[in-house]
Amino acid sequence: MRVLMTYVLFYTTKLKFQQCSTSFLTETYQTLPTFFWAFKNRICGDFLFFWFCSRADFRIFNHINVLMEFKLHNTDPGSKARAGEITTAHGKIQTPIFMPVGTAATVKGVHQRDLKTEINPDIILGNTYHLYLRPGTDILQQAGGLHKFMGWDRPLLTDSGGYQVYSLSANRKIKEAGVKFKSHIDGSYHVFTPENAIDIQRQIGADIIMAFDECTPYPCDYKYAKRSMHMTHRWLDRCIAQDKASPFLYDYEQTFFPIVQGSTYKGLRRQSAEFIASRGAEGNAIGGLSVGEPADEMYAMTEVVCEILPEDKPRYLMGVGTPINILENIALGVDMFDCVLPSRNARNGMLYTAHGSINIKNKKWENDFSVIDPDGHTFVDTEYSKAYLRHLFSVNELLGKQIATIHNLGFYLALVRQAREKIMAGEFAAWKNKMVQQMNKRL
Amino acid sequence: MRVLMTYVLFYTTKLKFQQCSTSFLTETYQTLPTFFWAFKNRICGDFLFFWFCSRADFRIFNHINVLMEFKLHNTDPGSKARAGEITTAHGKIQTPIFMPVGTAATVKGVHQRDLKTEINPDIILGNTYHLYLRPGTDILQQAGGLHKFMGWDRPLLTDSGGYQVYSLSANRKIKEAGVKFKSHIDGSYHVFTPENAIDIQRQIGADIIMAFDECTPYPCDYKYAKRSMHMTHRWLDRCIAQDKASPFLYDYEQTFFPIVQGSTYKGLRRQSAEFIASRGAEGNAIGGLSVGEPADEMYAMTEVVCEILPEDKPRYLMGVGTPINILENIALGVDMFDCVLPSRNARNGMLYTAHGSINIKNKKWENDFSVIDPDGHTFVDTEYSKAYLRHLFSVNELLGKQIATIHNLGFYLALVRQAREKIMAGEFAAWKNKMVQQMNKRL
Repeated sequence: MRVLMTYVLFYTTKLKFQQCSTSFLTETYQTLPTFFWAFKNRICGDFLFFWFCSRADFRIFNHINVLMEFKLHNTDPGSKARAGEITTAHGKIQTPIFMPVGTAATVKGVHQRDLKTEINPDIILGNTYHLYLRPGTDILQQAGGLHKFMGWDRPLLTDSGGYQVYSLSANRKIKEAGVKFKSHIDGSYHVFTPENAIDIQRQIGADIIMAFDECTPYPCDYKYAKRSMHMTHRWLDRCIAQDKASPFLYDYEQTFFPIVQGSTYKGLRRQSAEFIASRGAEGNAIGGLSVGEPADEMYAMTEVVCEILPEDKPRYLMGVGTPINILENIALGVDMFDCVLPSRNARNGMLYTAHGSINIKNKKWENDFSVIDPDGHTFVDTEYSKAYLRHLFSVNELLGKQIATIHNLGFYLALVRQAREKIMAGEFAAWKNKMVQQMNKRL
Repeated sequence: MRVLMTYVLFYTTKLKFQQCSTSFLTETYQTLPTFFWAFKNRICGDFLFFWFCSRADFRIFNHINVLMEFKLHNTDPGSKARAGEITTAHGKIQTPIFMPVGTAATVKGVHQRDLKTEINPDIILGNTYHLYLRPGTDILQQAGGLHKFMGWDRPLLTDSGGYQVYSLSANRKIKEAGVKFKSHIDGSYHVFTPENAIDIQRQIGADIIMAFDECTPYPCDYKYAKRSMHMTHRWLDRCIAQDKASPFLYDYEQTFFPIVQGSTYKGLRRQSAEFIASRGAEGNAIGGLSVGEPADEMYAMTEVVCEILPEDKPRYLMGVGTPINILENIALGVDMFDCVLPSRNARNGMLYTAHGSINIKNKKWENDFSVIDPDGHTFVDTEYSKAYLRHLFSVNELLGKQIATIHNLGFYLALVRQAREKIMAGEFAAWKNKMVQQMNKRL
């Protein structure tokens, strides 16, 4: 029995060595001398032996269990909308999902516990560019990763920094090797490469990490779009190589998603989607959209790409969008979204509801003492009135931003949850059309 | 029986007419014709009659029940510290109490439900000057008062606007009739008088309202302090006359507190305290302190005044102070406090703890992953780390201010609650000395 267990223990440990976090391995192997001494002297005997074996084994089996997995639960008969479930080391993600943006390790203005209990997203997003600059990967690594640092125990996704670097336009230089950019904080120079974008994301420790890509602007001439797309593809292979070569830093898997580019050219999008699909990643993303192009062009690109990206892997449309954009893209087969819109607009007093949007700063709400949203899904919707929220905005009070953010994110998450229900019931297409019409109003 | 009940009904109604809210009386009397018609025609007979009587009576008895009341529960043997209980229409206030400041109908950065469940003050404060300018008394009255407007169902206190007007220094002119001032928002001119300060506070509808006074600066020459004190006394009598002459607007009592002035002159303070005491108010306040004078001068003034103000009424020291100031003044016989310090300093990254204060922006907390305050009393204290909070301040995130505010106010409220326990147990003096020493550190 002992011989067998010892064999199992060392065999599985060796098997998973490359993928195991160094901290787990260090911990486990640090206990070895104590174990062997006790074993040799028959102290605590079987108890100690079984404890050690089970500890090591459970850790390894946990590890194997939490390799990202995607299950398709249903596809809508009237559209390409899909309901699925992603499993990660930090929990399950029901799709379609909207990921609130937690740029600098916080969803602005929202306590983690309200985020969890009121807004209730299965996953949130952090920005590599911002986290790399502050608090920096050194602090994040000392904390044991972003989850522990910010006190968020559900799944996390980090972008690669590519989009932020693209936004710096005047302060960055894109070359084949990587991107040199100037920090918006102190003007210091930094370089992002496909390789260090992976390394940094290892240190941040999100469950899903993204390829380093170039996000082209809109409009973008064909020649530039094509050249950039090919570079993004070459960068992808460098990312994949780095991802394979570098062990995880914490005791859970990280899943890598490549990104389709190609601007608004169907031919390039097709080519890119095929290239990306050929790499066989656990999930795939569509980048370079929601950068100013008309919604119809966005939908056209999503449609082309979703036809090519594998059906049995989640599809993530980056940086999109309005509630209507989200429903339209779900109908085209997208499973994951993120966008600053609901939170940023909330801080400017714009509220999304199922019946249209509200500019709460408008004088018409001044003495409307009805609740913010009678159909709302969070405590703020019924505990505060429109007149009160309008007052908070007119005096520029923090609480106004807090309330509006919880409302908007609560609305977005309820919307994707409802979309999922409709897909499961096979009623998505008709519901989507009704909602799109209904939400396309200003109240 | 009917004759008797009718008699009771109309007698008590008449008796309370002056003090009843107009809205209650209007409501009650609007049902009279219906009642008499039904009574005359014997429709529903006794049921209707008893319903009407009970409705009216209960309202009136409630009304009588909630006249402010103060009960002294214990006095500390080693100091003048008192534990008591104030009863208002919106609930009981255990004293000593610290009132978080909700300037513009919000305790900055704190949701009402967190204020209630985490910080848990029995009463909070609103500022007449700010509420008068925005949202304005018209909106507040339409909402049914500040409680309903902001969604706070516990007691409220409003200052009279005197302090804010004093702070405007360059933009106000003080005359016997009142104060003309320029709004800090749009430069428009307004006038506060003892009379309209009461009227505005009727419209705001706090449970405790304050006299309109002049808050003298520090230092202040004797002549000015004396002249100003006498004007404050004359203003007090005008406030009292207005308070008596004007009915409540909502269906609960408001209690009026006069304010002792006299700068840092013991003689003037004594004179003012005697004048204020002679007016027999339900509670009394000490103003004009915490305006820059050394703590010892503040304590000397509080001591002189507390010796004169009646023991059977609560004493409220306005605008004070640090945790140490609060304990020292409790020891001198003060029951109520308010101050922007815990909330304003929180927004600047300064945290108060039982073992001293923390500047969370300091680099030393950068990789301190221990919880904010292991002895803390709110969820933020154990759900976030010092390193995380420091990061939020370094990137100027809203959540940093939110966390620090809940921590500081939670600490203040826990401190006064503990002070109350110690007074009840007769152990306040020794505990206070220990705490003062302990808190007088920078961590």
